[in-house]
Amino acid sequence: MPAPAASNLQIDPERLWGDLMETAKIGGTPNGGICRLTLTDLDRQVRDWFCREAKALGCTVTVDDMGAIYARREGQRRDVPPIAMGSHLDTQPSGGKFDGALGVLAALEALRTLHRAGYETFAPIEVINWTNEEGARFAPAMLASGVFGGVFERDWAAARQDRAGVVFGDALEKIGYRGPAKCGDRHPLSAFFELHIEQGPYLEAEGKDIGVVSGIQAIRWYEVTVVGNETHAGTTPMPRRKDALVAASRIVARIDALACENAPLAVGTVGWLEVRPNSPNVVPGQVTFTVDLRHPDETIVEAMETELRRILYGIADEGLRVEMKPIWHQPPVVFDKTCVAAVRAAAQACGLTSRDIVSGAGHDAAYVSRVTPTAMIFVPCRDGLSHNEAEFTSKEQCAAGAQVLLQAVLAFDRELAARPR
Amino acid sequence: MPAPAASNLQIDPERLWGDLMETAKIGGTPNGGICRLTLTDLDRQVRDWFCREAKALGCTVTVDDMGAIYARREGQRRDVPPIAMGSHLDTQPSGGKFDGALGVLAALEALRTLHRAGYETFAPIEVINWTNEEGARFAPAMLASGVFGGVFERDWAAARQDRAGVVFGDALEKIGYRGPAKCGDRHPLSAFFELHIEQGPYLEAEGKDIGVVSGIQAIRWYEVTVVGNETHAGTTPMPRRKDALVAASRIVARIDALACENAPLAVGTVGWLEVRPNSPNVVPGQVTFTVDLRHPDETIVEAMETELRRILYGIADEGLRVEMKPIWHQPPVVFDKTCVAAVRAAAQACGLTSRDIVSGAGHDAAYVSRVTPTAMIFVPCRDGLSHNEAEFTSKEQCAAGAQVLLQAVLAFDRELAARPR
Repeated sequence: MPAPAASNLQIDPERLWGDLMETAKIGGTPNGGICRLTLTDLDRQVRDWFCREAKALGCTVTVDDMGAIYARREGQRRDVPPIAMGSHLDTQPSGGKFDGALGVLAALEALRTLHRAGYETFAPIEVINWTNEEGARFAPAMLASGVFGGVFERDWAAARQDRAGVVFGDALEKIGYRGPAKCGDRHPLSAFFELHIEQGPYLEAEGKDIGVVSGIQAIRWYEVTVVGNETHAGTTPMPRRKDALVAASRIVARIDALACENAPLAVGTVGWLEVRPNSPNVVPGQVTFTVDLRHPDETIVEAMETELRRILYGIADEGLRVEMKPIWHQPPVVFDKTCVAAVRAAAQACGLTSRDIVSGAGHDAAYVSRVTPTAMIFVPCRDGLSHNEAEFTSKEQCAAGAQVLLQAVLAFDRELAARPR
Repeated sequence: MPAPAASNLQIDPERLWGDLMETAKIGGTPNGGICRLTLTDLDRQVRDWFCREAKALGCTVTVDDMGAIYARREGQRRDVPPIAMGSHLDTQPSGGKFDGALGVLAALEALRTLHRAGYETFAPIEVINWTNEEGARFAPAMLASGVFGGVFERDWAAARQDRAGVVFGDALEKIGYRGPAKCGDRHPLSAFFELHIEQGPYLEAEGKDIGVVSGIQAIRWYEVTVVGNETHAGTTPMPRRKDALVAASRIVARIDALACENAPLAVGTVGWLEVRPNSPNVVPGQVTFTVDLRHPDETIVEAMETELRRILYGIADEGLRVEMKPIWHQPPVVFDKTCVAAVRAAAQACGLTSRDIVSGAGHDAAYVSRVTPTAMIFVPCRDGLSHNEAEFTSKEQCAAGAQVLLQAVLAFDRELAARPR
């Protein structure tokens, strides 16, 4: 049987949808979402499922010391680093069926398509499941891909603890997914492609099938503490108060306005806030909160930070003490031109509409891109909703993403084969 | 030895100060405050201390089913209801040395002064320690005096739970202070006098020794819930957000402004606020907070409530859901004229400067006043600071308050003796 032309290879929409629905039962919630926190027994179950399926396709499955799983299908050349696809199988506590899972299961479906067609790639192909992408159990997020990309120290990562004090490395051991290989060590990739739901509204609003992700916007996190004066709510006249919550409230409103002023691409969020002593009849003495500022352009995030400092100085001038501590800084990620072009061309070849887009969220691809040519593919999700049990992407939309993923990988593979060696 | 004239009886400033400093060690904090939450083992220790001291003065000590302690010294007439003094020995989590403790220990010192002088009153004299005045562990505040005053149902009060789910009645039992008597039942008082620190700035600002408390301002508490839409902080564009915290922040700032507009006597406070899901990269979907509005004039509090509703409607108009639930409503309290006059006259007789004042805070006296002629005495506290470890009232100021307390009680006792029977 002659090998089929790459362009004839078609993923099976029903099979992919079947995998999504079958694995969604592992940790499935009554509201149609998934609660499958990383390294729990539910995570072990879905990992076992994934390994079984990959082995059934003749793949070699290995696990590294961060619990990342690599399912490898050989190509013509064993000495060429694999082209990888993947994402993550862990979810938020009240997550949806598609965030992460789509990227892994579509990659598996792409591999299955190659397998059934007997198509031989030039480079080996790998499907990767990264550990603890969500960061919902262990902080920080994207722990395994961060170690893979050289962002986090291996020992530091293994020592992370969840809120109950369970150590990441021990949890890995317990579910039987602490492999012998050192994550990122002697494991070069020729490229990495990640399919993901957009988690935002743009594709749906514009009726596009595919987002060609050119990069990830810059993200900066800060922790701000406002210290006022803790006094009696019934007896302290208004002019004598130094109410930390009133001051913090003004800051929250100003941060919202600041992001709106940098429309349409800037976002600014105070997502976490804590009041002390938090008692109905005590004027708040201290408020601590996080600030999340994002924009595709680093210079604009920089300018927003400057403005944030100005806002905080203003509050400090009113006699309160204000401290700001940067806690996370991710410069904008620009994906590899060749990989992005492969995605764009694949979408076109598949007859799908597309637009270039900058990712608002961090992804494993952000860290992998530090050591590997990388790109991402987005598909729409209903109402832009994610991190929510109501998250939804249709069978057709999932299939379109998987088809583009397969074709982008094959295009990159051909390009690799054509390179002079 | 002939009985001394009442006007010659002098409390001992050193002895009172010694008691304050000694009991302040029970739950003493490194910053000089007290953390002695109600019905903890620390509360048991200070209660044991109080009972020992009272028994050493020949008092009969009884405890009721709300844990209120009554130390009774007999007078000439057993059939006349006692004249009571007291306050509370529990504190805020980071409370000071004087809030509550001064009222109980000054009463004990007054009793000791009578005892040492061998002075026989007409009516019995009681010193009362009320349970859970602060409401910091069990809501609502002033639980025992509330039952005593017929404001709270006995069984309902006993069933209150703290945040860990511990039931009030069980906690009482555990520290050995659930007495057999039914709180408020067949326990009439001829009068109740409570000495307390002002917890506000007026006496200090005007250089007055004593506040003759004519009543307590109206207090209304509400719980407000703002429901927005929980979405991804990185990918949800600003115009598509329904950020519950941004909305709540605007409300907090407006409540602050509302109180300022009703200067100089109105106060308005958001002291407790909780964000959900409270995660740095999730746009807050829900914020719940308390609102505390106070003014001596009920009609102004009423007008402030109307304006608060208008503020909330405005936020609801922006597409968020806003709910407001009244949780506490205390009409203004007007203390008994005879009792207030006794305090005013006592201050004058002691050669102290005084002014009439309306209490900004609720006190056990507010509830006791529903069933008993009641008045309060205020002494200044530094910078008006209370509910704070730095709370401070000098030895001389404490002594002045205790002396006025004793003289007011004796004046009332004489007045009682002179009444036709």
